Amino acid sequence: MILRFKRSATSADLARIEQTLESVGVRSARSPEPERRILAAVDSVPAEVAEALAADPAIDEAVACRGAWRRVDRAFRESHSRVRVGDAVIGGPAPVVVAGPCSVEDERQMEESADIAADAGADILRGGAFKPRTSPYAFQGLGREGLRLLKRAGDRVGLPVVSEIMDASQLGAFVEEDVDCLQVGARNMQNFTLLKAIARARRPVMLKRGLSATLEEWLQSAEYLAAHGAEDIVLCERGIRTFERATRNTLDLTVLPLLRQWTHLPVMVDPSHAAGIASLIPALSRAAIAAGADGIAVEAHPRPAEARSDGAQALLAGELATIVGEARVLSAVLA
Amino acid sequence: MILRFKRSATSADLARIEQTLESVGVRSARSPEPERRILAAVDSVPAEVAEALAADPAIDEAVACRGAWRRVDRAFRESHSRVRVGDAVIGGPAPVVVAGPCSVEDERQMEESADIAADAGADILRGGAFKPRTSPYAFQGLGREGLRLLKRAGDRVGLPVVSEIMDASQLGAFVEEDVDCLQVGARNMQNFTLLKAIARARRPVMLKRGLSATLEEWLQSAEYLAAHGAEDIVLCERGIRTFERATRNTLDLTVLPLLRQWTHLPVMVDPSHAAGIASLIPALSRAAIAAGADGIAVEAHPRPAEARSDGAQALLAGELATIVGEARVLSAVLA
Amino acid sequence: MILRFKRSATSADLARIEQTLESVGVRSARSPEPERRILAAVDSVPAEVAEALAADPAIDEAVACRGAWRRVDRAFRESHSRVRVGDAVIGGPAPVVVAGPCSVEDERQMEESADIAADAGADILRGGAFKPRTSPYAFQGLGREGLRLLKRAGDRVGLPVVSEIMDASQLGAFVEEDVDCLQVGARNMQNFTLLKAIARARRPVMLKRGLSATLEEWLQSAEYLAAHGAEDIVLCERGIRTFERATRNTLDLTVLPLLRQWTHLPVMVDPSHAAGIASLIPALSRAAIAAGADGIAVEAHPRPAEARSDGAQALLAGELATIVGEARVLSAVLA
Amino acid sequence: MILRFKRSATSADLARIEQTLESVGVRSARSPEPERRILAAVDSVPAEVAEALAADPAIDEAVACRGAWRRVDRAFRESHSRVRVGDAVIGGPAPVVVAGPCSVEDERQMEESADIAADAGADILRGGAFKPRTSPYAFQGLGREGLRLLKRAGDRVGLPVVSEIMDASQLGAFVEEDVDCLQVGARNMQNFTLLKAIARARRPVMLKRGLSATLEEWLQSAEYLAAHGAEDIVLCERGIRTFERATRNTLDLTVLPLLRQWTHLPVMVDPSHAAGIASLIPALSRAAIAAGADGIAVEAHPRPAEARSDGAQALLAGELATIVGEARVLSAVLA
Repeated sequence: MILRFKRSATSADLARIEQTLESVGVRSARSPEPERRILAAVDSVPAEVAEALAADPAIDEAVACRGAWRRVDRAFRESHSRVRVGDAVIGGPAPVVVAGPCSVEDERQMEESADIAADAGADILRGGAFKPRTSPYAFQGLGREGLRLLKRAGDRVGLPVVSEIMDASQLGAFVEEDVDCLQVGARNMQNFTLLKAIARARRPVMLKRGLSATLEEWLQSAEYLAAHGAEDIVLCERGIRTFERATRNTLDLTVLPLLRQWTHLPVMVDPSHAAGIASLIPALSRAAIAAGADGIAVEAHPRPAEARSDGAQALLAGELATIVGEARVLSAVLA
Repeated sequence: MILRFKRSATSADLARIEQTLESVGVRSARSPEPERRILAAVDSVPAEVAEALAADPAIDEAVACRGAWRRVDRAFRESHSRVRVGDAVIGGPAPVVVAGPCSVEDERQMEESADIAADAGADILRGGAFKPRTSPYAFQGLGREGLRLLKRAGDRVGLPVVSEIMDASQLGAFVEEDVDCLQVGARNMQNFTLLKAIARARRPVMLKRGLSATLEEWLQSAEYLAAHGAEDIVLCERGIRTFERATRNTLDLTVLPLLRQWTHLPVMVDPSHAAGIASLIPALSRAAIAAGADGIAVEAHPRPAEARSDGAQALLAGELATIVGEARVLSAVLA
Repeated sequence: MILRFKRSATSADLARIEQTLESVGVRSARSPEPERRILAAVDSVPAEVAEALAADPAIDEAVACRGAWRRVDRAFRESHSRVRVGDAVIGGPAPVVVAGPCSVEDERQMEESADIAADAGADILRGGAFKPRTSPYAFQGLGREGLRLLKRAGDRVGLPVVSEIMDASQLGAFVEEDVDCLQVGARNMQNFTLLKAIARARRPVMLKRGLSATLEEWLQSAEYLAAHGAEDIVLCERGIRTFERATRNTLDLTVLPLLRQWTHLPVMVDPSHAAGIASLIPALSRAAIAAGADGIAVEAHPRPAEARSDGAQALLAGELATIVGEARVLSAVLA
Repeated sequence: MILRFKRSATSADLARIEQTLESVGVRSARSPEPERRILAAVDSVPAEVAEALAADPAIDEAVACRGAWRRVDRAFRESHSRVRVGDAVIGGPAPVVVAGPCSVEDERQMEESADIAADAGADILRGGAFKPRTSPYAFQGLGREGLRLLKRAGDRVGLPVVSEIMDASQLGAFVEEDVDCLQVGARNMQNFTLLKAIARARRPVMLKRGLSATLEEWLQSAEYLAAHGAEDIVLCERGIRTFERATRNTLDLTVLPLLRQWTHLPVMVDPSHAAGIASLIPALSRAAIAAGADGIAVEAHPRPAEARSDGAQALLAGELATIVGEARVLSAVLA
């Protein structure tokens, strides 16, 4: 249950309602919303208490929760939330494009990639330093050195950077190298120890959907972040695992308009991992923006054929520029 | 293997190659392509014969098949094929919108639906007369009378009509009531007896993808139609069954750009059945067009709350008009 | 709602309750149960009528339905139903083994297959005459001639036969060739026109589960058969389509104990199509019997390497005999 | 490629081949096999080197790998491996039963659970102390105190214990509380940082299959453990996520006979999490043993209705005893 107060309600009203809930053993959470007071009852509220609250003169509306999440529920904020990563604003009027190589390989590759991203008009530079590879014998990433190269390349072209964090023990490195946004990968969406740890770092988090995660589970993982202190959370749809194997995964754009109704969090789409084939990415990027995504995250590489991972889905410089342009045009047309 | 002849090749060349193939037990099929001669080897061609053919002076290129389909392979036609249904052209420059109620219920409902479709600018009127319902106790449709009401309503507003055929025994009724396009539903995508029967009717067929059909199986079902005489085939993606239950099905737009590479057939998208929730349909319709669909098929009803089936996913008149408008704009912007 | 009458209830009681239901627009169905009167309300019963019925002196218990099915609900029969196919009894104390080739190919192959089945101790001979093949260019079966060869081979060794029917138009051939049991394949599980047609033939039907059919949909398809006159229905689990591709399908034995609670119909398991690999079939056959299956259906062929379809999953004579033996032993141990 | 040496081969032969591989940049791994020397080439071997090795007089056979795994490949050991956990031997002639509550709740509950497990004849006691709960507001387990209660309860009845570890930072607690076997949960199957960390602890690991993990991915995660030092690895199938929602997950017994061919690791089955319904567990336990599982892991609780998590799938004392008995009988019959 989410309680949206009248604009006339005072902080005393808020405290009073919090106490009422506490007295019946119900935990609650305050919205950081600056425009009006909103309170979420974390636990389920006894029927008679719920009735009394709905009738309370300080309360405008008592909204039933759509699921087990609270702080990320649409009703917990007055408007959709915006997440600032460097100069980029995810959830604002313009679509945000994240671009860069799957893995940071070396200084030259990273600098060329940064140039490609910046020249194409992308907003955030990506690059993997800690790589969750299926095989223990595959290239596992450059680790901390990779973060350093990524950040340096971003600084050179004036773009903030995002990289995947795989374990709480890596958090120090991400903070010290000043990685602007922490990405939680699909395989770690339900790594709750990791979610709790990075929530406390107070940096923007991009939470990818698990390969077989339902919408409800995804939002509950976002709720873990919010409940442990994260304020800037971005969801990222990257395809789910289905019976279809003609493409690597199945991009689930069906959930995009539903997420608009269920949560105030911005949502990005990563068509590269969904398709696994570079030639499909332009069409899927357009579809994502048209379905209402706040941005797209794609892989680009100066020489895809030489990439140490996922070369088949990496875009060339020209392709990336076209995608960024189309995203801008579509977004403007549909505004 | 698909053999694309040089423009200078003669019909004698074509006959000669056909004979070569026949002599090694390989069946072949001629493309109806007016612009140049193309021949598909239905069975696999022995390596030494394949080599000889590739070097034949009459042949421009010998293209390896992407799968087990032949006549619907991209290489079997010079350009993407266009399917004419009444005045509508599916696969042409403008997106085609199919609209109408899930089921034909009575004359008034059908006439009002036709008005909604026509006023909104839709191109084809839909309505189910034979309904494949999961429960034997649910409304099974008006049958032949439903086809008659549908056609009459279409004629009144000047729109061609499409309706689902469930069994070969219903074919006479569809032809006699002059239904312009026969729809094969998801549950019947691999009803091969039905596919063979309607292929011989020489009417446009809209083949929906099965709930758990792979791209390859879908194209092979289209090949059944083509192999038995159908010339006007339209594919229709309508969502696949996955673990996600927040939406009824998962619309698989990932396959759209891939289908462009694999087949010359036009592809429509039905977001209504995928989402199962009316409020999600506008966003999915936009996404479908942006991903390259040749059109969309949606459900609309004058009074969704009273619909005898699938009311929750039926659009109102105003919503349909918006969707048609957005499809036109998007298509023009992306052209 | 299923109404189970007291043993003292008379046919007048039954008629009275039927009339009560009819008067409020609720269709009902009588159980063929010889031991006591049972009535299923097909449509939902208004609350006040339901209460009155539950208190009616003639009624022992009013059971809420588990789903949309009625006649196949567990509560519609006093005990689990038994289906007689020739001398075999499916649902009785001993597990029934169906064995034979995927396709009937010729007289010799069919006779040898029948010998293998009979020698191994199988109870029913199978063989496909009408084959639902994914590709239009693959071997489509011998048709009616195949049914004739199958039946003749069965007669020679004294086994009843089962074969797949793909379309209502084939029903005459199945009846005239005296095929003992009609199999509805996975692709036709929701071919409702076919289900209605064969229900009227009053022959035992083996209804395979669709590749992506939920338990509820499967039981509703069985209900189609029952509602249109079929009295002898056997379910057959054959694997569902999942993301896993190491095996052809995923055998869903999890539903077996649940089906025991939800329906009175006997359930067989076909491990051959689920696994797609012969070496996996013995273990899966044991698992099926241990999970409570009433029997198994497997493919056997005198020369798997020469089979015109599905040779990779066909068992040899010795393997079949071992499977039959293990099924008998396991069933006896677990009785 | 796995190289199985002749029994006459010397350690000098082994060293020589290792050097040959190293000289062409191929990493290799020695089998701990006491009976004969076996070497796995971790990277792919150039064709000409592979040929030379196959003909080497010291080598008995050169086996092509079935996938990307090496140390867990069937060919890397002479016989299936056995994992000792306390007095229990997983992979030996008798099936091993793991039993206990989902969560450790308090001392009394844990002691009663241990009595139930021991009285029923179970071999290993389970209990969750660190709980990966979907919601941040759900009971997250007692943590280290839970491990202490579990171990004390196990000691009291003479059973070794297993518990789930969620993060590398918890490893110290598991070692200090002397937890006999570390369980990696489904959500952490691809938490590679965790896998590497616990591999170094040299304790038996039970690796559950991820909800949507393919067989190949599962074995590669096991390979992570093996490559980083783990010698005692047990796989545990616990159901995969499919479209079917009548049961919580779909137990995939189809892979059991395949795992026998692909790996030397023992395999357990957890039917509790797959079914999610206690009444289905006995049948699934029987099926698992019949399909060749080396044991089963089930949940039992003294008072399921009061359990703080997963009460619906917890068995009562009597039910557990029956399951243990049936597993023993089935295993003996099938031996």
